[in-house]
Amino acid sequence: MDGITSSNDPSSDSMTSRDYYADSYAHFGIHEEMLKDSVRTGSYRAAILDNGHLFKGKTVLDVGCGTGILSMFAAKAGAAHVVGIDMSNIIDQAQRIIEINGFKDTITLVKGKLEEAELPIIQFDIIISEWMGYFLLYESMLDTVLLARDKYLKPGGCMFPDNARMYLAAIEDQDYKEEKINFWDNVYGFDYSCIKDIALREPLVDTVELKAVVTDPYMLKHINLLTAKKEDLAFTAPFTLTATRNDYIHAFLAWFDITFDCTHKKIQFSTGPHAQYTHWKQTVFYTPSTITISEGEKITGTLSCVPNARNNRDLDIGVEYTAGEKPTKVDYRMS
Amino acid sequence: MDGITSSNDPSSDSMTSRDYYADSYAHFGIHEEMLKDSVRTGSYRAAILDNGHLFKGKTVLDVGCGTGILSMFAAKAGAAHVVGIDMSNIIDQAQRIIEINGFKDTITLVKGKLEEAELPIIQFDIIISEWMGYFLLYESMLDTVLLARDKYLKPGGCMFPDNARMYLAAIEDQDYKEEKINFWDNVYGFDYSCIKDIALREPLVDTVELKAVVTDPYMLKHINLLTAKKEDLAFTAPFTLTATRNDYIHAFLAWFDITFDCTHKKIQFSTGPHAQYTHWKQTVFYTPSTITISEGEKITGTLSCVPNARNNRDLDIGVEYTAGEKPTKVDYRMS
Repeated sequence: MDGITSSNDPSSDSMTSRDYYADSYAHFGIHEEMLKDSVRTGSYRAAILDNGHLFKGKTVLDVGCGTGILSMFAAKAGAAHVVGIDMSNIIDQAQRIIEINGFKDTITLVKGKLEEAELPIIQFDIIISEWMGYFLLYESMLDTVLLARDKYLKPGGCMFPDNARMYLAAIEDQDYKEEKINFWDNVYGFDYSCIKDIALREPLVDTVELKAVVTDPYMLKHINLLTAKKEDLAFTAPFTLTATRNDYIHAFLAWFDITFDCTHKKIQFSTGPHAQYTHWKQTVFYTPSTITISEGEKITGTLSCVPNARNNRDLDIGVEYTAGEKPTKVDYRMS
Repeated sequence: MDGITSSNDPSSDSMTSRDYYADSYAHFGIHEEMLKDSVRTGSYRAAILDNGHLFKGKTVLDVGCGTGILSMFAAKAGAAHVVGIDMSNIIDQAQRIIEINGFKDTITLVKGKLEEAELPIIQFDIIISEWMGYFLLYESMLDTVLLARDKYLKPGGCMFPDNARMYLAAIEDQDYKEEKINFWDNVYGFDYSCIKDIALREPLVDTVELKAVVTDPYMLKHINLLTAKKEDLAFTAPFTLTATRNDYIHAFLAWFDITFDCTHKKIQFSTGPHAQYTHWKQTVFYTPSTITISEGEKITGTLSCVPNARNNRDLDIGVEYTAGEKPTKVDYRMS
């Protein structure tokens, strides 16, 4: 319920996004949602506060620091100095927050783009960042985090987190597909099926119950934050899903896990359907037609993910799959 | 669950809103939400389809036609010709929809701003429009609808709807105020109270249970669509709220009712806490401190509502009230 979104035509204004968010009153709601995501914030807190041995006396860079919560965790964990950077106006609030909480001397906040900013420290022992978007990569800051690593991380330094893994499975989702996709077949007696085609191609960010999952999960993509390159973020990955029961399949389901392998007890969290709710939920890709599947049967295919050529904030996600018959290919777009 | 919103820094891109929504793939979700709001769409449907005597052989202008649903209702009700206008790209889908549903000859769609467009008909018997935003006026199209009326409505013509009324009451909302406002006092042990001040000033669009309402409702503002002027949309209105029981007050609550007084049976719907859910929900204005009130006691005050000078898409809403002691004034902003 945070934030306010117009119910009317959003295109009726030529104001830029930058103008929109340049207002300090506007939309702290996303920060509220992220802070209140206790899996997210609690995992970072444990990874940092329970690992004082890694932070004590070290220099820490917080990429996309937002309200400064991770910077304050790092300072509390004993960091000698923390630099937080963010280009959003929320950093003005972050500055007030770090001052009122007594971190003025330990934390330095920099407003701007990492690519252009001059930081007060040029080499860091640890880079912390909560850069993940929906479907891990949608509107994520990962490219900026990798750039920060190449430019500012000391040899042998730590990334917090240091590993991300994307998973795929298939789900039974008849009822909700009716509501979200087949709805367009008959809207108050009118045929809206041209919108159905568009709706199918827009992945849905939503929570899915574990009992809807009818295949084993498949690890689609592993990103090691210490070694990944920007080019790795556009990829094509093969998958094989094995059905765990006789059922029908209406969609593919994607989620991701995050690990802090550098920590003493290897802190991790998952955004999957088996795990506690996070604001990332899962991502649903409806298939054009229903797949009938029997226990042990396999669906093979590939998933490709590339930033849209015209608008690199959007993701073009192609899924090609074979389940018994001839291959099917669907081009999805997260925008 | 419709649409996809970034969980990460939305200011990390200078792309304009116009670019964003210029993509035909992007965000039909708002139309899905509006169509699925059965109070909204069902009321318009009844107002139009059950009043064929008003529409038969008439010319109808649909301002902000979106997917064309109201235009199709009007055509089905017997209109001789319907012109729908919208500046959003959704009108490209609307064109496909009216064609596939056999309304190509009855409905003409025009893409563009009403202020600049050349319409194929210069005088209309009826103007239909679903122009309402949150808090009735937030990002509403009402100014465009009034302009359409002055420019295109025949003398004696009908506005669908023709009346809107805003209401105010006060609510007990301790628990949710704790979660939304007082949350900022202690965020993982840190003092975030500077954000609390901002949070308080952002009205919250949310559903409120009727049992939370502790005063009589007060009609704050009546807009007669046949006579209202653009200047009337910036207003200051006095109010008096009378407590219906002994309780504590944590917020003011606003909602609106819409009536089609020109219809045979006077179709109407309410977005209040006593009525069925609509996507407009209600709007909550938290007060800085809790008000203790006894049955029969009154809160008097004024509510002012003006478009923000710098960004006229935003609303500046000032509430001044007296409950026993000295007056309190709070400046809210919907952005």
